[in-house]
Amino acid sequence: MEKPVALLLALSLAAPAPAQTPPDQSRRLREAALRDDVAWDIVEGLTTEVGQRLAGTEAEARARSWAVARLKSLGFSNVHVEEYRMPVWVRGTETAEIVSPFPQRLALAALGSSGSTGDAGITAPVVAFEGLDALRAAPADSLKGKIVFITHAMKATQDGSGYGYFGPIRFQGPAIAASKGAAAVVIRSVGTDHHRMPHTGQTNFDKGSAAIPAAALSVPDAENLARMLERGKPVVMHLVLTPRSVGEQLSGNVVAEVPGSDPDAGIVLVGGHLDSWDLGTGAIDDAAGVAITAAAARHLLDLPERPRRTIRVVWWGSEEVGGFGSKDYFARHKQENVVLVAESDFGADRVWRLRTGFAPADKELGDRLAAALAPLGIASAAGTPEGGADVEQWMEAGVAAFDLNQDGTRYFDLHHTADDTLDKIDREQLRQNVAAWATTLWIAANSSGRIAKTRD
Amino acid sequence: MEKPVALLLALSLAAPAPAQTPPDQSRRLREAALRDDVAWDIVEGLTTEVGQRLAGTEAEARARSWAVARLKSLGFSNVHVEEYRMPVWVRGTETAEIVSPFPQRLALAALGSSGSTGDAGITAPVVAFEGLDALRAAPADSLKGKIVFITHAMKATQDGSGYGYFGPIRFQGPAIAASKGAAAVVIRSVGTDHHRMPHTGQTNFDKGSAAIPAAALSVPDAENLARMLERGKPVVMHLVLTPRSVGEQLSGNVVAEVPGSDPDAGIVLVGGHLDSWDLGTGAIDDAAGVAITAAAARHLLDLPERPRRTIRVVWWGSEEVGGFGSKDYFARHKQENVVLVAESDFGADRVWRLRTGFAPADKELGDRLAAALAPLGIASAAGTPEGGADVEQWMEAGVAAFDLNQDGTRYFDLHHTADDTLDKIDREQLRQNVAAWATTLWIAANSSGRIAKTRD
Repeated sequence: MEKPVALLLALSLAAPAPAQTPPDQSRRLREAALRDDVAWDIVEGLTTEVGQRLAGTEAEARARSWAVARLKSLGFSNVHVEEYRMPVWVRGTETAEIVSPFPQRLALAALGSSGSTGDAGITAPVVAFEGLDALRAAPADSLKGKIVFITHAMKATQDGSGYGYFGPIRFQGPAIAASKGAAAVVIRSVGTDHHRMPHTGQTNFDKGSAAIPAAALSVPDAENLARMLERGKPVVMHLVLTPRSVGEQLSGNVVAEVPGSDPDAGIVLVGGHLDSWDLGTGAIDDAAGVAITAAAARHLLDLPERPRRTIRVVWWGSEEVGGFGSKDYFARHKQENVVLVAESDFGADRVWRLRTGFAPADKELGDRLAAALAPLGIASAAGTPEGGADVEQWMEAGVAAFDLNQDGTRYFDLHHTADDTLDKIDREQLRQNVAAWATTLWIAANSSGRIAKTRD
Repeated sequence: MEKPVALLLALSLAAPAPAQTPPDQSRRLREAALRDDVAWDIVEGLTTEVGQRLAGTEAEARARSWAVARLKSLGFSNVHVEEYRMPVWVRGTETAEIVSPFPQRLALAALGSSGSTGDAGITAPVVAFEGLDALRAAPADSLKGKIVFITHAMKATQDGSGYGYFGPIRFQGPAIAASKGAAAVVIRSVGTDHHRMPHTGQTNFDKGSAAIPAAALSVPDAENLARMLERGKPVVMHLVLTPRSVGEQLSGNVVAEVPGSDPDAGIVLVGGHLDSWDLGTGAIDDAAGVAITAAAARHLLDLPERPRRTIRVVWWGSEEVGGFGSKDYFARHKQENVVLVAESDFGADRVWRLRTGFAPADKELGDRLAAALAPLGIASAAGTPEGGADVEQWMEAGVAAFDLNQDGTRYFDLHHTADDTLDKIDREQLRQNVAAWATTLWIAANSSGRIAKTRD
């Protein structure tokens, strides 16, 4: 358990107001951000004018063009694309039906990296496992010729810890089943809703296992299949999945800057990811994140004085399918003086918690951030920030990071489904995010001295 | 506005307890029904072991076999199927994508009776209308070569009145557009959710208009299309719908009885419909209705004495696609002494209102029902009962009817979508339905005298 919120707030509010961040300026910035329309307009524009933007496809390329035009029109400096190449997988036909004893179709979606059944599909008996431990305990080759069904009981959590615990069912389950000879895998979606919305997402066959056909059933379909199996008769499924690899394709990161006044003060590197899964329109994952970080930085462009540090906003490509964008970005820029990193990639619901991973020398900066965010209902908490997939390598290299944790209670209702659309965004909560980020960026970019590495 | 609930309850509770329905018996029956598992088991069984059961297909035939076995095992008398033939339409491929200016796919489903675009589909500009009055005002032939988009702003209502008002967009919109030369029609789903779940349902081309391709976009997709159109550039859609008619096929009604003790007292005819749309598993529409009415009647089989009147439970076929089942049933049985009719076909959420359409002579029966239902939180209200599509002809012939109105606030979130699945059923609310129906059937079946016709 972490410290009680009340105590933390009391500590935070008692922190001295720093000279370089006068409270009225902080309040003005926060209040302007709470009226922000830029973030909404970015999410609305990306979802309406581009829609899904699977990494490495022409849709992602259209999103980059859209992003460059929008970031330039917002007044950012140094707006450009940094291209790289990556292997691309695309969805094909995907159908499943129970052949016996209870013929009916089930709703499902292939997982990223899934193999193909071929156009004719496969017909095989279904064998069920509750969780990965049960699957791991199955004898070698015991799954030969079977369609493995992996189920679980994921529930919603505010901090997304359910994904940490149940996510491996998707990440690793298919490879484990493949290693025991399974013909194919269907998992209960790693999701917390009850809609006929399969949750796609990447699965991992790269440990030498064959890429067998692998898909996620929607939660109602997984429950239906479980009920069929409970009746004790053999359940036979016909499965057709025809995804395919289309080789190396072009992808890219989009970069924009708020130039700092002191070239030696280092760079604050923030952003979200521009690519999305292909089923929805990528509103919460992650048009919201690119919108929040850019809109927040945009508010600093309006101020009479430039921030001390450069704020660099990156809209990374291909986060969903292997993080080729963030790897390329780190490889190109790791020699630069990046002093602080953060990513927004957990939807658009309100920020409820600040976590900083600062070195002890920067405790005062953390306290100042806590005090400035408290009026937005944000509690500063102990614990190491997670940072987000696109800034992971910077954190591993010791660069300081912060989390502005969003409420994830309904995030996994929508995550990686066709239902990730604009209407799921709450405008007021989106604005609270912009205010939290604008406040944080302003304080962090203007703090005096250096921001220490968290390790060497 | 109707009378305040408090006043109605006061009036109802003041009604004299009738001699033939001792309060302790009524309470025992109600309490037993509030522990009912039969209704849940029927919905669970139909959705798991049969799934969708489109009228006239082999799936509906499997549902009839399932129904006969289940109703016999529950102890009903005279369980049998009455077959008839009907024209059958089946879904094919259905895809839509915006070709320009913002290429992306939209989620949609063909409406029942839709024509086909052919496998190659059609590509045409989209022209939008808000509601049917705007569409009706379009000049003749002005829609030639266009894909007509009809939108609206349906919101949830407890009593389903939103469907009454906005439903004609689906029922009539495509035929009106066809009469003005439209190439195809896409409507905003007649639904109140925000999921990527198109709401199918029958549309009506039988007034001599050509059956053009007609489909419903999910609400998020309709909103996305509206946003594209607002930008003012021509929007071009590629639409593929390949449904087809498969001629006359066999369908049927399933009948079961609780035999009455007095052959001259007439028949109480109740039920729901066994067929469903093909996208979901027909849990709320209408496994719930057949389950509630059968489970309620089943509680009367447990009583020491047979009811005075026969209770006949009919699980009608093909309600969704033209009501061939109820027409066949009425034609065969209209000479029988049916004295009271009702249908359960509005989901599984709690009954909140009783409406009776009794002749003045039967006011006392209405008061008795009101008093017995009040402990379940049900208010008796003025107004004519609607009865349900499958008992409409009986009501038109003057037979008395009652409504046990269910809370429809979330019904049109799910109606006719893939999302109509078991997990949407609330077991406690389902039991409240069974208790309301069991109470009503018991009182109505045992009332003395005759139940008067409401008109001659």
